[in-house]
Amino acid sequence: MDDASFRRLRRQELVDDRVSGASQLARQALDGLGQFAASCTTDDADGLREQLLEFAEDLQYARPNMAPIFNLVQRWVDEVDTLTTTDLDHLRQASADAAMRLSQRSLDAVTEAAERAAGLIGDNAVVVTHSLSTTVQEAFRVLAARGHVRAIVTESRPGFEGRNQARHLDRLGVPVTYITDAQLGHFVRDATVALVGADMLLTDGAVVNKAGTYLLALAARDRDVPVYACCESFKASSFSTRGFELEELDSAELEAPRGRNIRPRNVYFDITPARLIDAWITEEGVVRTPPGG
Amino acid sequence: MDDASFRRLRRQELVDDRVSGASQLARQALDGLGQFAASCTTDDADGLREQLLEFAEDLQYARPNMAPIFNLVQRWVDEVDTLTTTDLDHLRQASADAAMRLSQRSLDAVTEAAERAAGLIGDNAVVVTHSLSTTVQEAFRVLAARGHVRAIVTESRPGFEGRNQARHLDRLGVPVTYITDAQLGHFVRDATVALVGADMLLTDGAVVNKAGTYLLALAARDRDVPVYACCESFKASSFSTRGFELEELDSAELEAPRGRNIRPRNVYFDITPARLIDAWITEEGVVRTPPGG
Repeated sequence: MDDASFRRLRRQELVDDRVSGASQLARQALDGLGQFAASCTTDDADGLREQLLEFAEDLQYARPNMAPIFNLVQRWVDEVDTLTTTDLDHLRQASADAAMRLSQRSLDAVTEAAERAAGLIGDNAVVVTHSLSTTVQEAFRVLAARGHVRAIVTESRPGFEGRNQARHLDRLGVPVTYITDAQLGHFVRDATVALVGADMLLTDGAVVNKAGTYLLALAARDRDVPVYACCESFKASSFSTRGFELEELDSAELEAPRGRNIRPRNVYFDITPARLIDAWITEEGVVRTPPGG
Repeated sequence: MDDASFRRLRRQELVDDRVSGASQLARQALDGLGQFAASCTTDDADGLREQLLEFAEDLQYARPNMAPIFNLVQRWVDEVDTLTTTDLDHLRQASADAAMRLSQRSLDAVTEAAERAAGLIGDNAVVVTHSLSTTVQEAFRVLAARGHVRAIVTESRPGFEGRNQARHLDRLGVPVTYITDAQLGHFVRDATVALVGADMLLTDGAVVNKAGTYLLALAARDRDVPVYACCESFKASSFSTRGFELEELDSAELEAPRGRNIRPRNVYFDITPARLIDAWITEEGVVRTPPGG
């Protein structure tokens, strides 16, 4: 495969993926950069550096509402920028190493955030969640290992990420009540806590996550069920809610009826305002007021 | 077809129908009773009366959360009970006439309620609705005939009743924004009013309607969008929210992943408390406080 095809394919994988959470996709982006550092056909270090930085920018904007892709790749770009070596092989190796190190740091952050979430939630919880989040999965793993936990999981239309979330929890031995998104209002009262991941944390403490998270938070508040947002700190972005643009994906996913007056929309994320969130959990700790707010 | 098969099939039609609203199903039940009055194989009026009343009871409990089926059939039962004739043909005719008359009265009530809703909503509205309701469809027909109106329609999982709602509005020439249920939170802010039908009005003013209606009402309240519930008065039931049991349908509709720890649930309706509703609209008028509350 030539360099351009490799880059196009790796970027498209990020765009098309409806199975993985934002953290996982960010680590996939780093993997792609590491592989490209090794395989890129070029004669000198400057050529490699230029191509790597171009590829990094492609990846950073592949999924604009998934902050860790931008943030982790940016951290990698910053490191590569400091590699002033003119030795091609050395640059290949150092760039790949930096990608692997950052990927590991992200994984550690996810694990740490999940452990903090599990500690806060405690034993015998009934946890309602929406869509798919590796951090939330990891929190369930810790909770299931420590004692009893049950889950209420939404199917999460249109991508049905909830099916994977349910399969994962099933393998962990966690009893799962599996519902449509529309049943969240009815079932939230059976939960002791709502736990969601985040694709992005805004500067005002609002959480960008799969569409439906805002509805879950509203229903939880209406039923006095606390809402925790749990994610690695790489999810923090420099945007605030005001003027923030939500990513819209292909509306064909909805299989809407055809009609000249019918316009299907597929705004994949929504924004849950900070006032509906009771705690923000990252690897750095648990805070009860909007981080940075 | 023998009498038992006819009764079983007509009842099953009500159970399986995911396309029609509660009012429409109630009128179908009356149609079935009228037809059975004409076709039932029996030798005398008492035998016919007994079979009709048995069939009526079957139909009344086919969809327990759809009040008009119970109420309209009960109204018909009350009328048939007063028919003391011993003339078989006369009883056949009178029973069928009563069914047709009640069906027409229901249809008139729907039309009148929809006209009142349209009057309250006014011109240039953006109306967000959930699931399918013939009363809401009728309100859109009036609004579209009088001037400009736009709609935001949910797909309404798991039955996708929203597809039919969207097709219907498309034929009326109403521009439809078609979304997943999970996008309600994001799109409700584009609406000027939320209009929903009801499968049942509880004595405390709460509305039983397709699961997701409660979420729509929460999001609407959070965005200061008024919520109107619109239906014929035959939707009123004698139940209140406390202890009310919501109908659960076959969970195979969810196409949930299989797993020994995964239990899919399909609670088809939810309850929107009166405090989230700004007006109740029936053929009898518009009220701003819970009817009967």
